[in-house]
Amino acid sequence: MIRSLFAVFALGLTLTHGGLAIAQTLDPLPSWNDGKAKQSIINFVTKVTEQGSPGFVSPSERIATFDNDGTLWSEQPMYFQLLFALNRVKELAPQHPEWKEKEPFASLLRGDAKRALAGGEHAVLEIVMATHAGMTTEQFENLVKDWIATARHPKTQRHFTEMVYQPMLEVLGYLRANGFKTFIVSGGGIEFMRPWVESVYGIPPEQVIGSSIKTKYEIRDDKPVLVRLPEMNFIDDKEGKPIGIHIHIGRRPIAAFGNSDGDLQMLQWTTAGDGPRFALYVRHTDAEREWAYDRTSSIGRLDKGLDEAQAKGWTVVDMKQDWKVIYPYEK
Amino acid sequence: MIRSLFAVFALGLTLTHGGLAIAQTLDPLPSWNDGKAKQSIINFVTKVTEQGSPGFVSPSERIATFDNDGTLWSEQPMYFQLLFALNRVKELAPQHPEWKEKEPFASLLRGDAKRALAGGEHAVLEIVMATHAGMTTEQFENLVKDWIATARHPKTQRHFTEMVYQPMLEVLGYLRANGFKTFIVSGGGIEFMRPWVESVYGIPPEQVIGSSIKTKYEIRDDKPVLVRLPEMNFIDDKEGKPIGIHIHIGRRPIAAFGNSDGDLQMLQWTTAGDGPRFALYVRHTDAEREWAYDRTSSIGRLDKGLDEAQAKGWTVVDMKQDWKVIYPYEK
Repeated sequence: MIRSLFAVFALGLTLTHGGLAIAQTLDPLPSWNDGKAKQSIINFVTKVTEQGSPGFVSPSERIATFDNDGTLWSEQPMYFQLLFALNRVKELAPQHPEWKEKEPFASLLRGDAKRALAGGEHAVLEIVMATHAGMTTEQFENLVKDWIATARHPKTQRHFTEMVYQPMLEVLGYLRANGFKTFIVSGGGIEFMRPWVESVYGIPPEQVIGSSIKTKYEIRDDKPVLVRLPEMNFIDDKEGKPIGIHIHIGRRPIAAFGNSDGDLQMLQWTTAGDGPRFALYVRHTDAEREWAYDRTSSIGRLDKGLDEAQAKGWTVVDMKQDWKVIYPYEK
Repeated sequence: MIRSLFAVFALGLTLTHGGLAIAQTLDPLPSWNDGKAKQSIINFVTKVTEQGSPGFVSPSERIATFDNDGTLWSEQPMYFQLLFALNRVKELAPQHPEWKEKEPFASLLRGDAKRALAGGEHAVLEIVMATHAGMTTEQFENLVKDWIATARHPKTQRHFTEMVYQPMLEVLGYLRANGFKTFIVSGGGIEFMRPWVESVYGIPPEQVIGSSIKTKYEIRDDKPVLVRLPEMNFIDDKEGKPIGIHIHIGRRPIAAFGNSDGDLQMLQWTTAGDGPRFALYVRHTDAEREWAYDRTSSIGRLDKGLDEAQAKGWTVVDMKQDWKVIYPYEK
């Protein structure tokens, strides 16, 4: 689907040159209702790509960064990576008889995820380290690939890769058709995303930034491997996002897309540069087709960010109003 | 010059289609003498780009990584970044009267770099932290840009960006013309390289991997900044190179280029993957046109790596024999 989008844009761009002006008749964002949000995206892209205009930005500087959870795919009833981790706990339980007595594992194995996660950040960290470390990078990649190919969402019963936002796929394709490099900048695990984001979003592994644990280089049976260690390397959230962007990309994005307070610093950093800048928040307002949550949610809280977006005139997408469909399968 | 190389390749590739077969008559590596090293590069590129051949590699997997110091530019009589740091020490000395009594600064300020560096890694780290931290990332970028535009090499009196290897510039251009993404993977500072490598090597900032210090996100006068802290973040050398490659690129290179034991793990990691693989060591054998050093040098030592290259049949470039010219200004 991403590929076909691409083909359409390429065609449109080529044919305008022949005088047919097909590009104008093609809607680059067909799943968006007409309105301020859609128009703000098109206006920005038009401005930075118009040769000779004062807002023109050279292609090499057209960097756009996207949060993942809640911005490109859903994140309820809990981050999908956490569902992956919970599944791993169940699979690993036979090798860890001690987990029957030890929190947060004991509650998890009794099916009480809520109680397990009551331990907050510390509990999550324990679960992540127990399930994401202790194997080679290649082994972990295979675990993710297997899970993402088979696991189903508890509410929709869909594959998780089907629960991506069709309107945002169109934004990704539209930006790339206009010379942008698109990056993911997520609080989620960098190695959890890389095995599937290329086929789903068209974003190659080298354009994925995320949280990571440390790895160690070792020679095993005459072959080098990278072993995943139970130790945090980098947390790509809040203040970590501009830091991650700077380390990985080395230049400031001109456009950034998020949905929560965890993205606020990325949007601040992006919009503080010179020249045309674009910042967009996806606001979850659709309890029927997706979920509705913002200022008081424990997952994907959007509170300070919403105030700052309103004060600074950033684009705020109202899912319910602005999006014709949420998921590709609704088309 | 890089741009004109590109144009030549593009022309060659286009015209072959018209039946003129100009590509065959154009030498992609004109500064290389005919011999095993040159032929091994051309054979590898031909193999992985030949549609339908068993060695064919899809463009997205054509990742090539290059060490910088001693592989793309010279590194004698000491790493050029260290010369930048020594210059910074002199500039900062008036603000640090205590340095007159304190090593390694005292020796440096008396012009005795050798004695200052006798403190080894610890001394170097002290110098780097004193000169590379304590400012914003933007301020540091400007310091590097100023220095690289004006400073001269103590022996050649050339700008440091002139002391890059013409034959390696040709390899970079040749690989990119054949669909490769070229990355730098250097023990040097990531922020020290990014301000100038795009114009010199044609490698954009997001394809530069290097050592780094930690940064901190702050709002100053209502504007976000990243402040450089006197604390190491990552050392991109030896075992660190495969780790840095994995974090930044997320896939294994199919070709890697280095010149020292510090690159050995990168070459091991690269060649341990499936399918066609290429590893190359530049050996500094030319005391007249450049420098001659290998097994016993304190800078850029090539000892274990040379043994492994010979055992595994990696390409070893003999600078004196294989390269018609060293620097672009000798052409």
